[in-house]
Amino acid sequence: MGVVIPLESDRKNAQNAVAELQALVASEMEQVNDFIRKRMESDVPMIPDLAGHLIASGGKRLRPMLTIASAQLCGYEGMDHVKLAATVEFMHTATLLHDDVVDESDMRRGQETARLVWGNQASVLVGDFLLGRAFQMMVETKSLRALEILSNAAAVIAEGEVLQLAVAKDTATTEDAYLKVITAKTAALFSAAAEIGAVVSNTQNGEEAALESYGKNLGIAFQLVDDALDYTGKASALGKNVGDDFREGKITLPVVLAFRRGDEEERNFWRRTLQESNQEDGDLETALAIMEKHTTIADTVQRARHYGEMARDALGVFPDSPIKSALSHLVDFCIERAH
Amino acid sequence: MGVVIPLESDRKNAQNAVAELQALVASEMEQVNDFIRKRMESDVPMIPDLAGHLIASGGKRLRPMLTIASAQLCGYEGMDHVKLAATVEFMHTATLLHDDVVDESDMRRGQETARLVWGNQASVLVGDFLLGRAFQMMVETKSLRALEILSNAAAVIAEGEVLQLAVAKDTATTEDAYLKVITAKTAALFSAAAEIGAVVSNTQNGEEAALESYGKNLGIAFQLVDDALDYTGKASALGKNVGDDFREGKITLPVVLAFRRGDEEERNFWRRTLQESNQEDGDLETALAIMEKHTTIADTVQRARHYGEMARDALGVFPDSPIKSALSHLVDFCIERAH
Repeated sequence: MGVVIPLESDRKNAQNAVAELQALVASEMEQVNDFIRKRMESDVPMIPDLAGHLIASGGKRLRPMLTIASAQLCGYEGMDHVKLAATVEFMHTATLLHDDVVDESDMRRGQETARLVWGNQASVLVGDFLLGRAFQMMVETKSLRALEILSNAAAVIAEGEVLQLAVAKDTATTEDAYLKVITAKTAALFSAAAEIGAVVSNTQNGEEAALESYGKNLGIAFQLVDDALDYTGKASALGKNVGDDFREGKITLPVVLAFRRGDEEERNFWRRTLQESNQEDGDLETALAIMEKHTTIADTVQRARHYGEMARDALGVFPDSPIKSALSHLVDFCIERAH
Repeated sequence: MGVVIPLESDRKNAQNAVAELQALVASEMEQVNDFIRKRMESDVPMIPDLAGHLIASGGKRLRPMLTIASAQLCGYEGMDHVKLAATVEFMHTATLLHDDVVDESDMRRGQETARLVWGNQASVLVGDFLLGRAFQMMVETKSLRALEILSNAAAVIAEGEVLQLAVAKDTATTEDAYLKVITAKTAALFSAAAEIGAVVSNTQNGEEAALESYGKNLGIAFQLVDDALDYTGKASALGKNVGDDFREGKITLPVVLAFRRGDEEERNFWRRTLQESNQEDGDLETALAIMEKHTTIADTVQRARHYGEMARDALGVFPDSPIKSALSHLVDFCIERAH
């Protein structure tokens, strides 16, 4: 299966996409950031210290930007989207804190993980605090529909993480099963973040479903590209090390495809290294060579492109506008990160 | 400071208190249990397996009973209290799962902890799932006031757990600081559980504040007695081992008082064993002897009695009824467990 080589102009659009979106949501994102800082305060100093370490560590705030941009796209003029955007970032941060404990990760966004600095115990508990705080903040908006969407997302995300744990060591995982995992653990929050932008705007003409679909497919594309990046030199751009997923025995799409396309000798390699966690020097290089042979990293990006197109088409119901254009270019950004 | 020896009739009342309450809420608690079973279901089998291990392990369901009893006390006739009671039990279970990971506990309610059977990773993530599910369920009641109370409780509980972590190794913790910890980590959920029983009933005459106060003080008393029980032979009744808190270096009220009342040699003992985690054979026996000398276990129960009285008096606004009487006797039960 071939790879569509992006045109130079696509790449440039992609690089500018985040800047384009950021410019349109800048003043509201400043309010989101103020709100985040204010609401992570606590009489217990370890809480803002630990949460701040991660929240201030230069994440792109992609998810809260989705909420702000979606509300703008729907012509919203109130303030609830700021509160809900901060809520989404708190939920995301809580998930990252718990993920790093579960995965025993040492690095995140190019710096030591909170669990290395403050310990696993504090990371679990501060994650719980942020989740509780997120719910407090969303209750303040009094939007029962937003509460429904975000509480569903919270349960689905955790369900996806448990599912991932269950399939973690199974090299025979199907692409469908893997999609189910990432739809839950990653796409559910993208989807909720975008959808609640429509909810606060009281839209009536399919905008909510459109943004739910946009967010979901963008989230799937985003995760697939993350999976590909983990095996390329670009992983350092994520502040992680190349091959982290391999070393942790994580079955992601590049492996799922390689296992299905490989011969018995290759399958035994995947079984030994990932299923039995028996890795030797040089195994990562072998893994990369097998993936290269079956072009599974490029094809993972190609699969991402498919979901990206679905995300873009979901925006069709909205009239043209700068924010619509920025959300469309954001799809390019999520995918062209791979190059 | 002396210990008030309870009359034989008090003890008997206490023993009957839970049975008395259980009889009054039996049919609703059956609905709560049905609801709990139904809502812990998931396509991911590990979730009901792990959650069920703890939920079915014979906890007394004290917190959801508080919600049902409070609603009864307020004359409620709908069904939302059943859903909210199940929510409270899910929140409690999530906390226990995370607590056992944080404390590295091996036993809970006389059986192996979920983290021993399924691992720390699954315990963290299933805890997150139950918290998400709890929020979904409370949103279904559409009671913004109940949502506010329960989301506040979620944040406060986690805050209390982090605070406990921060003071964990400080033998010079004051009684006030310790009360702050247990008011947050334990009493907040008792308080919320009782208060929401009034909220669903749309009470107007101080019933909500009364039940909040009842729950809070009952929770403090309950935790203090738990702390005392940990150092007595009765700990086995909790399904734990005598001295677990000591071995884990937890500073609870029996230690706080012993440290304040002790001489320098004794303080050095507490510093070595709890602050520096340097324990030798025979240290638990020495700890018990020092506590006995300063009567700090008995005085911890005596302090619990004080909060128990506050809880009982908070019920004063309600007219006499069997359920009021059962809630009053529940205070005796919580305290007389110590004997």
